[in-house]
Amino acid sequence: MQAKVAVIMGSKSDWPTMQGAAEIMDKLQVAYTVEVVSAHRTPDKLMEFGEQAVARGYEVIIAGAGGAAHLPGMVAAKTRLPVLGVPVQSKALSGLDSLLSIVQMPKGIAVGTLAIGAAGAFNAGLMACQILANNDAALAERLEAFRTEQTEAVLSQPDPREEA
Amino acid sequence: MQAKVAVIMGSKSDWPTMQGAAEIMDKLQVAYTVEVVSAHRTPDKLMEFGEQAVARGYEVIIAGAGGAAHLPGMVAAKTRLPVLGVPVQSKALSGLDSLLSIVQMPKGIAVGTLAIGAAGAFNAGLMACQILANNDAALAERLEAFRTEQTEAVLSQPDPREEA
Amino acid sequence: MQAKVAVIMGSKSDWPTMQGAAEIMDKLQVAYTVEVVSAHRTPDKLMEFGEQAVARGYEVIIAGAGGAAHLPGMVAAKTRLPVLGVPVQSKALSGLDSLLSIVQMPKGIAVGTLAIGAAGAFNAGLMACQILANNDAALAERLEAFRTEQTEAVLSQPDPREEA
Amino acid sequence: MQAKVAVIMGSKSDWPTMQGAAEIMDKLQVAYTVEVVSAHRTPDKLMEFGEQAVARGYEVIIAGAGGAAHLPGMVAAKTRLPVLGVPVQSKALSGLDSLLSIVQMPKGIAVGTLAIGAAGAFNAGLMACQILANNDAALAERLEAFRTEQTEAVLSQPDPREEA
Amino acid sequence: MQAKVAVIMGSKSDWPTMQGAAEIMDKLQVAYTVEVVSAHRTPDKLMEFGEQAVARGYEVIIAGAGGAAHLPGMVAAKTRLPVLGVPVQSKALSGLDSLLSIVQMPKGIAVGTLAIGAAGAFNAGLMACQILANNDAALAERLEAFRTEQTEAVLSQPDPREEA
Amino acid sequence: MQAKVAVIMGSKSDWPTMQGAAEIMDKLQVAYTVEVVSAHRTPDKLMEFGEQAVARGYEVIIAGAGGAAHLPGMVAAKTRLPVLGVPVQSKALSGLDSLLSIVQMPKGIAVGTLAIGAAGAFNAGLMACQILANNDAALAERLEAFRTEQTEAVLSQPDPREEA
Amino acid sequence: MQAKVAVIMGSKSDWPTMQGAAEIMDKLQVAYTVEVVSAHRTPDKLMEFGEQAVARGYEVIIAGAGGAAHLPGMVAAKTRLPVLGVPVQSKALSGLDSLLSIVQMPKGIAVGTLAIGAAGAFNAGLMACQILANNDAALAERLEAFRTEQTEAVLSQPDPREEA
Amino acid sequence: MQAKVAVIMGSKSDWPTMQGAAEIMDKLQVAYTVEVVSAHRTPDKLMEFGEQAVARGYEVIIAGAGGAAHLPGMVAAKTRLPVLGVPVQSKALSGLDSLLSIVQMPKGIAVGTLAIGAAGAFNAGLMACQILANNDAALAERLEAFRTEQTEAVLSQPDPREEA
Repeated sequence: MQAKVAVIMGSKSDWPTMQGAAEIMDKLQVAYTVEVVSAHRTPDKLMEFGEQAVARGYEVIIAGAGGAAHLPGMVAAKTRLPVLGVPVQSKALSGLDSLLSIVQMPKGIAVGTLAIGAAGAFNAGLMACQILANNDAALAERLEAFRTEQTEAVLSQPDPREEA
Repeated sequence: MQAKVAVIMGSKSDWPTMQGAAEIMDKLQVAYTVEVVSAHRTPDKLMEFGEQAVARGYEVIIAGAGGAAHLPGMVAAKTRLPVLGVPVQSKALSGLDSLLSIVQMPKGIAVGTLAIGAAGAFNAGLMACQILANNDAALAERLEAFRTEQTEAVLSQPDPREEA
Repeated sequence: MQAKVAVIMGSKSDWPTMQGAAEIMDKLQVAYTVEVVSAHRTPDKLMEFGEQAVARGYEVIIAGAGGAAHLPGMVAAKTRLPVLGVPVQSKALSGLDSLLSIVQMPKGIAVGTLAIGAAGAFNAGLMACQILANNDAALAERLEAFRTEQTEAVLSQPDPREEA
Repeated sequence: MQAKVAVIMGSKSDWPTMQGAAEIMDKLQVAYTVEVVSAHRTPDKLMEFGEQAVARGYEVIIAGAGGAAHLPGMVAAKTRLPVLGVPVQSKALSGLDSLLSIVQMPKGIAVGTLAIGAAGAFNAGLMACQILANNDAALAERLEAFRTEQTEAVLSQPDPREEA
Repeated sequence: MQAKVAVIMGSKSDWPTMQGAAEIMDKLQVAYTVEVVSAHRTPDKLMEFGEQAVARGYEVIIAGAGGAAHLPGMVAAKTRLPVLGVPVQSKALSGLDSLLSIVQMPKGIAVGTLAIGAAGAFNAGLMACQILANNDAALAERLEAFRTEQTEAVLSQPDPREEA
Repeated sequence: MQAKVAVIMGSKSDWPTMQGAAEIMDKLQVAYTVEVVSAHRTPDKLMEFGEQAVARGYEVIIAGAGGAAHLPGMVAAKTRLPVLGVPVQSKALSGLDSLLSIVQMPKGIAVGTLAIGAAGAFNAGLMACQILANNDAALAERLEAFRTEQTEAVLSQPDPREEA
Repeated sequence: MQAKVAVIMGSKSDWPTMQGAAEIMDKLQVAYTVEVVSAHRTPDKLMEFGEQAVARGYEVIIAGAGGAAHLPGMVAAKTRLPVLGVPVQSKALSGLDSLLSIVQMPKGIAVGTLAIGAAGAFNAGLMACQILANNDAALAERLEAFRTEQTEAVLSQPDPREEA
Repeated sequence: MQAKVAVIMGSKSDWPTMQGAAEIMDKLQVAYTVEVVSAHRTPDKLMEFGEQAVARGYEVIIAGAGGAAHLPGMVAAKTRLPVLGVPVQSKALSGLDSLLSIVQMPKGIAVGTLAIGAAGAFNAGLMACQILANNDAALAERLEAFRTEQTEAVLSQPDPREEA
């Protein structure tokens, strides 16, 4: 199956955060690729990645990075595909630096930014599915099913004092 | 032309910020609707809006709000469509409250968040176009043209000391 | 005994924080209900909950949530009852996001916000009792007794260097 | 008419912010008193005010202050009545200092905190009405009418691009 | 020996932080008293403490508190003695709330604020000694000796790579 | 009259902030000197100033600075006199940088820090008087008179809605 | 004269900030070039610029940018030359976003970051001169002269109350 | 070999952070010295160090400090050599205080600031090498080799899901 989503991250150490994106795409049966692309350590690969992203058949790019997180914005500078950014929680500043570095893009180059950390990564994968579902009725159905299941998981345990 | 993008905002006073989204969609010839939907003052309308969004033919929702900005997240709770959130600059905290209220969504409901203020609104419109361009070759071309034009505008005036 | 206070929270995982509200209401003999209501995962339940809150006999609602914490504000949008919000401490931003998402409500819909975390939950329960005590002389007395007891606990151990 | 709400503030200069509380209580026909009580400049008056608040017939106290805002918390230390705190926007730190000084109360003494500035003051007045409405059916009706009116004001102008 | 310094704190749990003040005063042979005085739980004791501080012979008051830390400012409101404030590190916001609640006092009532946590407590004790040394030549000498010793401790181990 | 207080500041442009210190000392008849001493531009003068401060008869030093405000801490490193620091409001970060640079001193060298800006400068002057009043009964009386006057100014206008 | 310093910035609108770098280099007779290079709008030019920087004879690069400021870090990723970053003051967040986006670089790619805004730009120019002066005795002398002049300007006006 | 880089730090306890600077200079064969110089505890040594730095043959100074971190800025005040500042992660505020105290220098005295903590220390060492490499072709080559190696380390493990 042709991967329509690329998951890239600045460092191998971002994988524990980013795997949430993979988890939800696996569940919703959306094909994706996973790659380390570092804005700072492999800038040429980043440029090439951005340049070829349309031709490689991607429709959404998920980019996770921490600290002075330049990866999402730089990929967005090189492709017309929608880029979703995941701020990885940083050591000293808890990801506030990552968040601001990703979200505060200037007029003309956009990054759709998700929450700091694992919830954000999961939601980036989810949002990629939401984007693809616009043109994939079966995926839209699986997405609705996931949402219903999620709702029911809460509804079935309304009293938090009970054991699960 | 069927509007595929809905631009909603919490208050009429958010329009000066949000009109950037309209500006770029006008330029790229993407049809959209504009509506005030307040999470706090018109919660029923918000729920109905979210519920009907798919049926009304939308493919992307852009939601702008300030302060304890609940509009983007609550729409996202009611539709499987991708929701882009624009943090409107608030008076006391300059939009940091708006940003955190929009971006820090829990696992399972996603909002793709753009920058605080007018640049973020413009980029939300732009990202909506990027999403739609995945399945609209003509739009993809206009998008590429916009990007080229934007690049050339910088390249043609490399020395900031010169008069425009 | 008819419960006059409802304690709701966005997730079962908020219970360790929120149980402080229950603790003080138990002590002051105020009846309450406890429920998980997620703004994002169960928005319809949230709306229904808000709509029926007056009819169900509640006089105060305590709502706890973390991150982009929309629960307190959305309940407040659906009921004229006073809503007390408890910002649950979040992982990356320590609850600053929760606090701002709850407290920075726009003109017209109010949430009385307590401190981040367990102290805030306890105080939300306490404040619910304070509100009810306006029309319940016996509760007012128990409240005064609690306050006196609390004062005496400090007064009886004025020197912090001594063992308890 | 016996005033059931007291509006106090640390300085005369807080009045432009705090008058929003008066505005909504006037509208909803709730009687209130207004007084300057400074935690730092008139601590004895503050203590006396707190001590006598129940006897004077108040049921809710609204306290506004800026910077190291100690007024709401200190009144709460002296009365079992519910205290609503309004963080006044400060010069250097825009009210973030006021907000944290008011909301981060320790376990055992509660302040229900509203948003920074004028919206918070209005909402403090509104919440006082919500508290009183629990035992005042006519006020409850006026409150519902205000809420409906507020909703309709938004619904009647759904398109922000139109002139008012 | 008449104690010229009073060390007060909002809670027994602040002692591990505040004991640094005692440590340096012990070393410099300055007599002090230690007491728990809670602005919120024992406001009357706080007022009485402030009122009697001059008569009890104190010349400096050291007050430590966390969160919405009102103790230093409220004591300062009740006495003309210099008050030194120590922001105790809080759980959620790491003492930023404590710091702002103590330092951002309004014009007319001053608190000399030290660093967050144990270093701040030590320095509050040290500064109390510095104040007293203005009129105590022997203390001034011990103070100078402490400063020299401190300098020499650094100078004797200039290379941080060596074992101590 | 021998000046017992030195007011120093990093730049001439800090004077509009720092003059509040002079204002209160003038009122309370405490003699002081005023000087520009820049930690960064005149480090040798700073060192000399600190070294000679005791010999020149000072008992308190007030130091104001903005941004990476090193003046208060460096003077404190060079003298056993109590140093009061005033964070001058900076352009980009509103004095939060100034505040943290002054207050977060390491164990062993203390700066008693006042509020950001003009209120902090006034309070630094006031606190210098409070320190000196410990050994100057006449000053103590003037100080008490100032405090009474300040209290009465608030008490005489308790209703903020009235014209002054 | 061969330019050894390149001043680049993300947008023409950054020039009012960045001209301080030019001012000091003009004064110290250091040749430089000025160019707009946008990380997001002209990424290819940025890459080329970085790649050729050594060959073009530069020894220091000064890069200014605001918001999600990626320019300094991305140039640093493409050249072994020292890169000095200037955070331009942004509208909503006052340059805190710019600062964190520039300074929080990951291990392996460095940016020497200066203060937010005009002072930072001036200091970037100054630091470029300091770097070059290591191998240019005449420049070192001019630098020392500038420093002396700067010191004397402060020393000649020690009393801030006097007219200039 | 004559050391061209001096690594200084405010306290022995900063060494675990600062050793990254040593690590990269060892790797790139750049000689350096390491010393504890405390701005606050050994101000005279600091002044002397700054004064003699040029004469001792240094070309770059790396200074690490935490909290109210005055060391980098004060050394910069005393020498024309380029100073690189490393904000050490502090206990309460995670190094945000250290960062602002180092980076927000006034116009006229510059500190090139690196990231908070160990990554920043490594990068300070790296940047010192980059500065020296301008006049040392062999070092420039080793630097390029390090950069290539670093790039290849990422390129050789593009898939973060694989074991190393």
